[in-house]
Amino acid sequence: MKPSENALKASKAVSKKRLWKNLMSMAQIGALPNGGVNRPALSKEDTAARILMLDWASKFGFETEIDEIANLYIRLPGTDPQALPILTGSHLDSQPKGGKFDGAYGVVGAFEALEAIHKSGIKTKRSIEIVAWTNEEGGRFQPGVMGSAIYAGDILLRDHLNQKDSDGVTLKYALDKTLKVMSNLPTRKFGRPLKAYIEAHIEQGPILETTKNKIGVVSGIQGLYWFGVEVIGEESHAGTTPLSLRRDALKAAISIISNLQLLMHDESDTVRFTVGKLDCEPGSPSTVPGRVYFTIDFRHPDPDILKEILEKIEPTCLSNGMGCKVLVHPIINSPPVDFCEQIQTRIKAVATHLGHLNMSIHSGAGHDAGHIAKLCPTGMIFIPCEGGLSHNEAESADASDLAAGIETLTACLVDLANS
Amino acid sequence: MKPSENALKASKAVSKKRLWKNLMSMAQIGALPNGGVNRPALSKEDTAARILMLDWASKFGFETEIDEIANLYIRLPGTDPQALPILTGSHLDSQPKGGKFDGAYGVVGAFEALEAIHKSGIKTKRSIEIVAWTNEEGGRFQPGVMGSAIYAGDILLRDHLNQKDSDGVTLKYALDKTLKVMSNLPTRKFGRPLKAYIEAHIEQGPILETTKNKIGVVSGIQGLYWFGVEVIGEESHAGTTPLSLRRDALKAAISIISNLQLLMHDESDTVRFTVGKLDCEPGSPSTVPGRVYFTIDFRHPDPDILKEILEKIEPTCLSNGMGCKVLVHPIINSPPVDFCEQIQTRIKAVATHLGHLNMSIHSGAGHDAGHIAKLCPTGMIFIPCEGGLSHNEAESADASDLAAGIETLTACLVDLANS
Repeated sequence: MKPSENALKASKAVSKKRLWKNLMSMAQIGALPNGGVNRPALSKEDTAARILMLDWASKFGFETEIDEIANLYIRLPGTDPQALPILTGSHLDSQPKGGKFDGAYGVVGAFEALEAIHKSGIKTKRSIEIVAWTNEEGGRFQPGVMGSAIYAGDILLRDHLNQKDSDGVTLKYALDKTLKVMSNLPTRKFGRPLKAYIEAHIEQGPILETTKNKIGVVSGIQGLYWFGVEVIGEESHAGTTPLSLRRDALKAAISIISNLQLLMHDESDTVRFTVGKLDCEPGSPSTVPGRVYFTIDFRHPDPDILKEILEKIEPTCLSNGMGCKVLVHPIINSPPVDFCEQIQTRIKAVATHLGHLNMSIHSGAGHDAGHIAKLCPTGMIFIPCEGGLSHNEAESADASDLAAGIETLTACLVDLANS
Repeated sequence: MKPSENALKASKAVSKKRLWKNLMSMAQIGALPNGGVNRPALSKEDTAARILMLDWASKFGFETEIDEIANLYIRLPGTDPQALPILTGSHLDSQPKGGKFDGAYGVVGAFEALEAIHKSGIKTKRSIEIVAWTNEEGGRFQPGVMGSAIYAGDILLRDHLNQKDSDGVTLKYALDKTLKVMSNLPTRKFGRPLKAYIEAHIEQGPILETTKNKIGVVSGIQGLYWFGVEVIGEESHAGTTPLSLRRDALKAAISIISNLQLLMHDESDTVRFTVGKLDCEPGSPSTVPGRVYFTIDFRHPDPDILKEILEKIEPTCLSNGMGCKVLVHPIINSPPVDFCEQIQTRIKAVATHLGHLNMSIHSGAGHDAGHIAKLCPTGMIFIPCEGGLSHNEAESADASDLAAGIETLTACLVDLANS
């Protein structure tokens, strides 16, 4: 699957400098004092980000579209209007204290690919389209990856319209406001067929950096499961109650978590097990805790291992309660996604040909690509981010790495668009 | 140390019914819907409780006094005005959601003892005085056991006058308001010498109930030490960060606490080790915790064991940080108090003579008696409370047990007052 001459030509036209400049322009929208950005989904900043994209698109006469959830599309038309398009993109919304690259890289980078292809004078059979999916982060309206989930038919827009953000603004209101600003754009229907989808994204983890790879060929998105564990003991006086007579909810929670750590032990360091939230009540130094609530975030790419461990989570919790009542509530149940092998092979071939050290990598985080994988052959390209840091104002990436990802993306898009 | 005829006579005059009635009258002041009370120190409820005591005292012509921190005294005068008095009492303030008996029992019960002695027509050489110490709980103004600590000279009133409660009211303001209501009372100086002090209190633990004893002869108050432990790791993405590359503050805190549990392990079940407060930040299920703060409450009666374990607390914390930064801050450093052996012998002799099953018991909680023990021979009488529950609206005690404690107290007071 050697990249074509045209693919390499377009790839060569990718400008590291221009990509960086465009990323920095985008990062000014919702810029925070410590270098990050705050662009909540469907906010005025999110709208400004879309307008910037449309402004860029208009310079080259690219076609534009929007759909009912405000997913924004920019098209470099192909020579065959009947051929299914190749889609690429990511999201422009951010975490409340997010970084410059999470999401924006996949959209602004896709635009760089389109510009490079366009400027190379290359015509492809299929259209190449950029998408900026609405509300990937889920910080303002839940769930996240909303735009892609609705596009793929995994959830229905009408089920979420009355949802409110923390200021009481409904999704419907925020969405109408955004759509009104872009009411001149043609409307696209959800689920319109696609030939392929590739999303570029920062890794949001340290593996590429640690292994000195420039490109991660994403093999899939690991399965993600959340549980809430409630441990109910009995409040008592820390000075007067002998340990043997206590029902200490924190002690029980610690015993449960320690046993979950044993259950999750994995020499290959593939299992992701996190207790990120732990609330201890009443939280008085001299009172034995009467109630602890903690979350389990468990992820793994392998369905068999997921099944094996998932079966043991509740029993492990229940059998280590030390006399406390233990309740296990499932919260998220998201099986693994495998990306198309041919797309992976193509990305690897291009990256290798371009001299970008690359490796196969599984995505620990969820992405819009996870939903689109149901509709068409899908893949993702990761590039390193500094220290693996993301969802953090200090999120950072190297301009050369950012360009390497888009060079790879560009060549893949050209050859896919001629397939 | 057989109780005298007079002591037994006075003890017999203790009325279970009247004691219960008076306790229930007191429990109406600041009564909460679920059966508890809220009488913050120096609040209008606290003042109302004092007025009720003064009202009872006036019926019998008992003498009354107040001091600058509003500790309230009620005196049954002895035949020898020069002889040092015997003091008994506790506190009338409560936890925000406290019970009917914590503190109030020691004051209302002391009044029952005085009434019984008075009604028996017994004259003692020494005066017998009741005290209601101000602000034992420390819920509104810190530290707790304030009135007794100031009386004993362990802290100075002037150092605390500008302290504010959570509504911004200063101790000085609240104190002046209380003192103004009782401005007709003679003023007593701090530290006035005492012959002996006995405090009756509910156990606030389950030992007496479990062992079916009616009277706990309190041997002392165990040493109490608090530490705050800060564990600083690094926030990272739960899905993308391999476990080997994390600095998980909660995982480290759990390792520290597990190792402290091993350090504190005690077959005799005498060590009291509690982690009552644990805050985990940022508290997002999909973010590896970057900071955990937890408290250590460690208590033991034996100075040698205290020393041995105390020396190992910080090293245990520091050596189990799993790559996180660990800081250990001492908060409370309160060595053990031993009560007077002769007072203990006397309480035991009386309880045994009265047929009340009794045992020697160490106080797990702090009490005003801990400060007064520096001034004079001091002791405490514990009675069982239901399920050991205290600092809780559901706090409960049996009317017969309450009476048994005051019968014992009364006989001790009479014989001490004639010593």
